Amino acid sequence: MAEPNTKRVKTEYELIYWPKVPGRGEFVRLLFEDAGVPYVDISKSESEAVPNVLGLMAPDNKGDSNNPPSFACPALKHGDLVLSQTPNILLYLAPKLGLAPTEGNGIYQLNQIVLTILDGLSNEPHETHHPIAASAYYEDQKPEAKKRAKSFIEERLPKYLAYLQRVLDGEASGDGPWLYGGKLTYADLVLFQGIDGTQFAFPKSMNKMRASGKYDGVFRLYDAVKERPNIKAYLTSDRRCAYSDGIWRQYPELEDEN
Amino acid sequence: MAEPNTKRVKTEYELIYWPKVPGRGEFVRLLFEDAGVPYVDISKSESEAVPNVLGLMAPDNKGDSNNPPSFACPALKHGDLVLSQTPNILLYLAPKLGLAPTEGNGIYQLNQIVLTILDGLSNEPHETHHPIAASAYYEDQKPEAKKRAKSFIEERLPKYLAYLQRVLDGEASGDGPWLYGGKLTYADLVLFQGIDGTQFAFPKSMNKMRASGKYDGVFRLYDAVKERPNIKAYLTSDRRCAYSDGIWRQYPELEDEN
Repeated sequence: MAEPNTKRVKTEYELIYWPKVPGRGEFVRLLFEDAGVPYVDISKSESEAVPNVLGLMAPDNKGDSNNPPSFACPALKHGDLVLSQTPNILLYLAPKLGLAPTEGNGIYQLNQIVLTILDGLSNEPHETHHPIAASAYYEDQKPEAKKRAKSFIEERLPKYLAYLQRVLDGEASGDGPWLYGGKLTYADLVLFQGIDGTQFAFPKSMNKMRASGKYDGVFRLYDAVKERPNIKAYLTSDRRCAYSDGIWRQYPELEDEN
Repeated sequence: MAEPNTKRVKTEYELIYWPKVPGRGEFVRLLFEDAGVPYVDISKSESEAVPNVLGLMAPDNKGDSNNPPSFACPALKHGDLVLSQTPNILLYLAPKLGLAPTEGNGIYQLNQIVLTILDGLSNEPHETHHPIAASAYYEDQKPEAKKRAKSFIEERLPKYLAYLQRVLDGEASGDGPWLYGGKLTYADLVLFQGIDGTQFAFPKSMNKMRASGKYDGVFRLYDAVKERPNIKAYLTSDRRCAYSDGIWRQYPELEDEN
């Protein structure tokens, strides 16, 4: 019998996330996919995913000698390490996957952009359908959701897109379509997913934003990521999960004029 | 004439934040204060603070050759570097100020805890008084704020406190009152401010949480930070800003039973 390949197991990346929604797990997946680095995605097995996620957040889960417990998923297991919080997982992974500088202050400048994209194109879209209580049904907070969505579409979304266009127009973005330093980084992948999810949730509004011509750089970047060979292959594979009742939800009444 | 002391200027830390509220700037201040490291706090000069903050977020501010622009304050200037996003500024500062490990994966485990505290005890408290639109007056979203506050007090706040108690009960927290590794880190300072602000906003609810005995470790940590000599001196100094209409606001109607 061959010796067990413990080294491989030790360095294997494992993503723990809910099944059947792209959600916040998608930001993590895109890094692996673009880098072409294998990862185990627990969400693909519903029978494994739900117990794993619930176990992560269980009241008696106090972590271990190396790891504090997690508040929520996604979580990443890498050898003995267990990490949670989306921007934190990305921060850990990106330099290892060749998607962020391994030296200097560039990682902080990328983290700043990534935190802002996650705020504007992931956290705030979630608030549009759950402005009162994350634990309650959308159907029980529809009037409030309608108001929050109006404020998101009319004020917040243009504000975030204008910021991202400012980043692209700035000198620090360098040449080419990318956000930072003239080459693709994980921030570009995060932007792609934020735009893609928000387009699913608010298709009419996002079409208007694109047509306005004010954020051409942002949409050019989105298109450029979509054409990257590994991303293109991923998006048409069965590893890419369809949108449903997750962070980005399509409730047409939230963007229709009254 | 003496040569200008360019070295000192280059290494000086400068915090850019709104005047007259502790706000998110307070998390940054506490790191400097506990470490006893001098910093320039622009918020203390109202005539300087407002133009600085507005300049940071201005539509024509595209950063410079080293720095992408900022979406919002707080921002930190350190030499040629300009960084924004609260958890990002803290991540940059903490190892330099002796408040986080400079090697290994501890920084990611701390960042995970810090991001969660900021979500639960800073971002979500802000949502309680502005659940519909950050740009609108509280007075124009009072019924929705009342509902959101109820959900925060009854569900979210206990959930976050239980998580923090789990961290403290876990092995990775080590000995003593601290969250990670048996010694004070920046996560403890962030927890202190989160609890302090939430106590200001929801005094009755937080008293009940303390009296419940379920989160004794959390409140013991809070008390321990408050007694640290540099923090104690800071809290009674005129550098500590009183709470007012910022992140943490005291609207008694938001916690009174109907």
